[in-house]
Amino acid sequence: MPLLPRALELVMTELGKLPGIGRRSAERMAFALLIAGSERCDALEKAVERLSEEVGVCPECGFFTDGGVCPIDSDPLRDRSLLCVVEDAMDVVAFERAGGYRGLYQVLGGMLSPLKGVSPEDLRIAHLFDRLERSDSRIEEVILATSPSVEGDATAVYLAREMASLNVRLTRLGRGLPMGGSLEHADGGTLRMAFEGRRAMG
Amino acid sequence: MPLLPRALELVMTELGKLPGIGRRSAERMAFALLIAGSERCDALEKAVERLSEEVGVCPECGFFTDGGVCPIDSDPLRDRSLLCVVEDAMDVVAFERAGGYRGLYQVLGGMLSPLKGVSPEDLRIAHLFDRLERSDSRIEEVILATSPSVEGDATAVYLAREMASLNVRLTRLGRGLPMGGSLEHADGGTLRMAFEGRRAMG
Repeated sequence: MPLLPRALELVMTELGKLPGIGRRSAERMAFALLIAGSERCDALEKAVERLSEEVGVCPECGFFTDGGVCPIDSDPLRDRSLLCVVEDAMDVVAFERAGGYRGLYQVLGGMLSPLKGVSPEDLRIAHLFDRLERSDSRIEEVILATSPSVEGDATAVYLAREMASLNVRLTRLGRGLPMGGSLEHADGGTLRMAFEGRRAMG
Repeated sequence: MPLLPRALELVMTELGKLPGIGRRSAERMAFALLIAGSERCDALEKAVERLSEEVGVCPECGFFTDGGVCPIDSDPLRDRSLLCVVEDAMDVVAFERAGGYRGLYQVLGGMLSPLKGVSPEDLRIAHLFDRLERSDSRIEEVILATSPSVEGDATAVYLAREMASLNVRLTRLGRGLPMGGSLEHADGGTLRMAFEGRRAMG
């Protein structure tokens, strides 16, 4: 007979699938939930339920939204001549938290990776080109803000080649970012430096 | 207009209430859940729902159980002459994982703390005495396995005083240097305890 109740093991398994949560953390969290009581369990349960039901993807940029166009794309004060291409929604949050950038975003939803079987069709790349080629597009500069990693660089190089014929300036982030690091872990100062230090590509 | 959808903020708030989960961790977890999709959200939701519905408290020791007496108390091979008194269910898991102890447990559900307003009535202390004074009790030794902290010590001292008239041997956990620890990193309190608790060699 196992030591822990089945439902406790289940919660630990589910929590353990989340990034940065090991077996011990998942255990501590599950026990804390149980001790906190059914009201707190209910609150988490309802919140997670609403998460998948209510949160949508912005039809413009691919960032998360309560429905319709996201707050960034619907903000009339954002600079519509700048488009920052990022891997995922966490990167948008990181840039917004760092401050300084007032343009728009495009969330790819991943990086190209032959090893992991991620090809251009798996990312929001067709949508990115639709957006750039739209007749009312005011985009003058595309910042390829991919992570300074092999996959990030490969994705940037791929996108730069595909965009070569378009009438947009291509830049990528300044190498103020430490190699091997991931965007979501970079601090605000590093991100601001990287924005300021962006350089023409090709 | 806030950057993040309300439901995403809600999940982050609920996850952020769990031990060891800061704002950034909660954010990373919530985004990962969202990206993982509704199936994974469903799985977590259902697991948390089952947690509060299915997991009960063992009427004997206060540890978590699927219902009825827990696997430890219902194990005929456990030594019923030993009772280890711990603060919470996580401690039971820690001892069971460490191995070596084959007695029973009593989970208090906290530590006495005048500052936090925790008095004996708030803990499973009356139940502990019921258990000790039961006519069929075979308990010969009570191990007061409270944390080596002010509150843990106060709780152990309180319990020892209350149990003085009972015909049981009272012990508490050995104190000193942790395994694998180095002398230079040990704090003064630990070193003093280690000196006081020195034992004859060979």
